Amino acid sequence: MIDMTFQPPKGTRDFLPEEMERWQTVLDTVRQVYEKYGFRPLDTPAFECFELLAAKGGAGEAIKDEIYYFKDKGDRELGLRFDLTVPMSRVLANNPNLPKPFKRYQIGKVWRYSNPQAMRFREFWQADVDTVGSASPLADAECVAAVCEVFEKLGFREIRVRLNNRKLIQSLMENAGITGEKLVDTFRIVDKMDKVGEEGVRKELEEKGIEWRKVAEIIEVRGAGALEKAEKKWGRTEGLDELKQFVKFGRALGMEKLIEVDFSLMRGLDYYTGLVFEIMVGEEKLTFAGGGRYDNMIKKFGGPELPATGISIGLNRVVTLMEERNMFKESGAKKVFVAYVSDEMAEKALETCRMLRKAGIVALMDVGARKLGKQMEYAAAAGASHVVIIGPKELEKKSVKLRDMNSGKEKDVKIELLPKEFL
Amino acid sequence: MIDMTFQPPKGTRDFLPEEMERWQTVLDTVRQVYEKYGFRPLDTPAFECFELLAAKGGAGEAIKDEIYYFKDKGDRELGLRFDLTVPMSRVLANNPNLPKPFKRYQIGKVWRYSNPQAMRFREFWQADVDTVGSASPLADAECVAAVCEVFEKLGFREIRVRLNNRKLIQSLMENAGITGEKLVDTFRIVDKMDKVGEEGVRKELEEKGIEWRKVAEIIEVRGAGALEKAEKKWGRTEGLDELKQFVKFGRALGMEKLIEVDFSLMRGLDYYTGLVFEIMVGEEKLTFAGGGRYDNMIKKFGGPELPATGISIGLNRVVTLMEERNMFKESGAKKVFVAYVSDEMAEKALETCRMLRKAGIVALMDVGARKLGKQMEYAAAAGASHVVIIGPKELEKKSVKLRDMNSGKEKDVKIELLPKEFL
Repeated sequence: MIDMTFQPPKGTRDFLPEEMERWQTVLDTVRQVYEKYGFRPLDTPAFECFELLAAKGGAGEAIKDEIYYFKDKGDRELGLRFDLTVPMSRVLANNPNLPKPFKRYQIGKVWRYSNPQAMRFREFWQADVDTVGSASPLADAECVAAVCEVFEKLGFREIRVRLNNRKLIQSLMENAGITGEKLVDTFRIVDKMDKVGEEGVRKELEEKGIEWRKVAEIIEVRGAGALEKAEKKWGRTEGLDELKQFVKFGRALGMEKLIEVDFSLMRGLDYYTGLVFEIMVGEEKLTFAGGGRYDNMIKKFGGPELPATGISIGLNRVVTLMEERNMFKESGAKKVFVAYVSDEMAEKALETCRMLRKAGIVALMDVGARKLGKQMEYAAAAGASHVVIIGPKELEKKSVKLRDMNSGKEKDVKIELLPKEFL
Repeated sequence: MIDMTFQPPKGTRDFLPEEMERWQTVLDTVRQVYEKYGFRPLDTPAFECFELLAAKGGAGEAIKDEIYYFKDKGDRELGLRFDLTVPMSRVLANNPNLPKPFKRYQIGKVWRYSNPQAMRFREFWQADVDTVGSASPLADAECVAAVCEVFEKLGFREIRVRLNNRKLIQSLMENAGITGEKLVDTFRIVDKMDKVGEEGVRKELEEKGIEWRKVAEIIEVRGAGALEKAEKKWGRTEGLDELKQFVKFGRALGMEKLIEVDFSLMRGLDYYTGLVFEIMVGEEKLTFAGGGRYDNMIKKFGGPELPATGISIGLNRVVTLMEERNMFKESGAKKVFVAYVSDEMAEKALETCRMLRKAGIVALMDVGARKLGKQMEYAAAAGASHVVIIGPKELEKKSVKLRDMNSGKEKDVKIELLPKEFL
């Protein structure tokens, strides 16, 4: 009986090779697109000082319930990172001389103990792009465009960018008399629209003594013509101008048909200070990425005053959907399995593998030193595209047998000409 | 003044973009070579159940002092992984149906609280290859060859493979009357040869009541002809045969000149059961990788009885030496910076970036919306190989100015022909 003690810890899982290879294609695509936009990689520790983690949203000690918290032997309070924005903001605070605008990407795991999305997992991958040191909507539009291209490259259609500006909404709300604590409540409650529906939002707002009518008047503005409608209704403001600029720059970046202004998009987190955006994908309109401007965070972490914006992709959700939809294609890459008919030929097989690898070809053999039949089974399990068979008869003629695993066709090939078959 | 509260936690560090780009080239090389040998990727959680971590070396509770230990909210005992061998062995125990031999690579971070090598860091990268399900030295030789090729591809010369067999040494020691506790002590003490020298080892052995002369007779066998000498001295044994086979297969894999049999190589860890190896690089003979056979571990973790072998590269040491020796070359990759002379041309600059990126070219602009002079400074800081300047005069002719940042030469190029300049 298998000892069941040793499973992956609750909330975590393993990625076996076949699945991990699919993940790799996604991770590679993300990285390649981010780099094409001039974002550069950053890496930070898996854990951070607890005080830093607690400082982000102003949640303080309460955040202990949502993260993996521990102490080191020196009694220092630590926690596994729950996002990649906090570590990057700390890096910017620690290194005031980094050239600005600082454009970085980071792809890595984060850990959350309780998960608001009720997902089963507590360890998951994020892929962020952020730009620090520019207050221009140019920076926001570029981050969003990069993420849209990631989804396009992964094969998704029907990509939508929901866009809003917290600055604008805040001033409209304040003008309508919704201020202070009530304003924070409003952001939080409206953010639940997708989950609880308009009726639910209305009820919750009224429980807090916030007039639904006043809120509705603002958040109902959305879709085509939203910006013109808003300007007519409330006049020109800085927040509205930023939205217009985002749309203009977004157009130049090819996102014309993707952007939808939606005054009900709040992005609940406290630290957003301006433009906020969410990227939804497919008919199901699943939110795959979200972000916005956080112009106060780096200062809060002891750095200079630096405007910042960025967006984060939740990769687990992306890969799950891609698997459900069979979006992963066979790579078509060549993988050559070298089989040998008897033990004395193991060295010849190794030499053949070596020759192929030298030419840059993926080559493997059965290092289990088993009989030919077993080797052939193993070649199939390993997903070989071709099998080379080393036998005494062929070897006399300095040849090997080459089998194409797709067509089943076989031919004899001179050993020294073998690499050419795969180039 | 900068608030010093928020630094990376003690024992950890950040990798800023320039350094991280160098790391990426190393990580990519490792992965590419491992894949060429037919190893496939595996990913496991950052933390494991404490019981699993404690089970590995038989250290039990004492291991708490050497790892990051914590509990989750459900009071489950956990610890950050300290290597990649334990998680892989657990995976094999959990998934008995994985086809064998199972060849996997894993590149990832591990965490150790106290570091026997007295390195400053507690978070570092390992890059492992392992083969499970083959007892043949074919498997060992292949793992070692893959790691040697990694070092070669990274540009290292003078690669040496130190080789020994714990099985053989154990039987020789036992024949010399060194058994039980004394045998374990001997492995541990001889392993310190590099650190404390022969005199130190001799002293420590004698303190434990182990005769230096008996140990010396065994461990002094090394270098050219070591295997012949050993066979003459002690006769043929299974352990000696395994060494011979490793050497034979190693020769077929091109490692003929690299392998040095050295009976003083112990690899202290308790769990090794047969062949052990270390890879040393450069004149300094720094150990960059080490491993060996651990045929009992998977069974210990509740799995079937499965022979296993593997080797782990300590990447931090590798990258440090590469940086000291200036082994990182300029990538020579093209990076196009798009500058624009006035605000109205920002959209044109975005469109130009978009066109270049569409052609697969890395393109960026100053999203800080600054004046041309600042943009040019930024282009240099961002390491642009080329700068495109969008100005009103050129734009009239549907052209842009293109500057090669290495030669300083400038020319006018029709916008639609721009991508061709970089392909």
